Amino acid sequence: MQLNSLIERVEIPARQARSVRVGAGRRVRVTTETGGQVGDLFAFTGDDLAEHLSAAHTRAHVGRLFPAVGEQFVTDLREPILTLIEDASPGRHDMLIPACDPARYRALGVVGAHASCAENLRRVAGPLGREIDVVPQPVNVFMDIPVDQEGDLAWLRSPAAAGASITFEAVRECVVIVSACPQDLVDINGGTPKPLVLEYAAHMEGSVRS
Amino acid sequence: MQLNSLIERVEIPARQARSVRVGAGRRVRVTTETGGQVGDLFAFTGDDLAEHLSAAHTRAHVGRLFPAVGEQFVTDLREPILTLIEDASPGRHDMLIPACDPARYRALGVVGAHASCAENLRRVAGPLGREIDVVPQPVNVFMDIPVDQEGDLAWLRSPAAAGASITFEAVRECVVIVSACPQDLVDINGGTPKPLVLEYAAHMEGSVRS
Repeated sequence: MQLNSLIERVEIPARQARSVRVGAGRRVRVTTETGGQVGDLFAFTGDDLAEHLSAAHTRAHVGRLFPAVGEQFVTDLREPILTLIEDASPGRHDMLIPACDPARYRALGVVGAHASCAENLRRVAGPLGREIDVVPQPVNVFMDIPVDQEGDLAWLRSPAAAGASITFEAVRECVVIVSACPQDLVDINGGTPKPLVLEYAAHMEGSVRS
Repeated sequence: MQLNSLIERVEIPARQARSVRVGAGRRVRVTTETGGQVGDLFAFTGDDLAEHLSAAHTRAHVGRLFPAVGEQFVTDLREPILTLIEDASPGRHDMLIPACDPARYRALGVVGAHASCAENLRRVAGPLGREIDVVPQPVNVFMDIPVDQEGDLAWLRSPAAAGASITFEAVRECVVIVSACPQDLVDINGGTPKPLVLEYAAHMEGSVRS
């Protein structure tokens, strides 16, 4: 599927995050060119970006753990923000697990600094005027967390092959922030954090932020 | 199972919420004396109650959709806050669905005011010094939201019989707020919102708030 005619490409270096501002009706795509890399996706809208894509409200809205193609993600005010337009991946994405953060790495035995999706979000959102206190639960693209009939979760290595992508369309103008997850202590990224690519349909009001 | 020796009993009227402050090591129990009534439980701790029980971080902590007896709920800083001590109910509780709120009732066709767990939380937490901006995702006791193998959710009537209860122990001093869910347009409460009972082990620092 083609994005709109004007495409901007934003490389997300391994362990870092980038953002794009996406106008209503425009599309944004996340691609794992290497394969096997999870991305934590956040989206904000409204005045001062105070409204956020909410995993919990989205589950209630669609009646499933993750939207199907054609369904919408909603905000904490239950307003549609993104539509899942195309899924050119094995279709394994997660909306149950929070962003990794310093406490997570401390619990895994890390002493000292370790990049995290939570800190990446704060670093990118701050200059956009959104001081992040509580990190919203992300949409974890290419992350495979199956749930069995007892409600037990498994943390599997991302099954996304090289070139796998997922594409969203903005229902409202919003800022989309994607962190190339730096997790290297559990196997979700196969032990090696890798870059991601963010493509979006640029338009007059659009701008790339880093 | 007996709670600690000094028991305080707080009636939660139908469609309303109440709070208790629970010291570390003390217990709090929610009972549906009528049966069939869902409670939205929130817990806060830390300075100005700024830290909250987080459903997403708890899922990652326990590796399942809902803690088993003996397991802990954690905060958004991944600190243990409550332990699930006893479950004298059918064991169907939810940690996937957000609190009902004015937007939810508007979408269900309600014109004008309708009580909601989100507004109940705000009303109770404000006088405790915690202005609630974003409502944390609650622990929905006695709420049965099964997940099938395709990830589809069902909204079932609460299977909790009259007298069913669930008991928690505070790992840290915290404020526990429970809203007797006013949902009367979907079947989770059998169409009729009912009261709940909150019992807790009082201690010198404890106090009932309403």
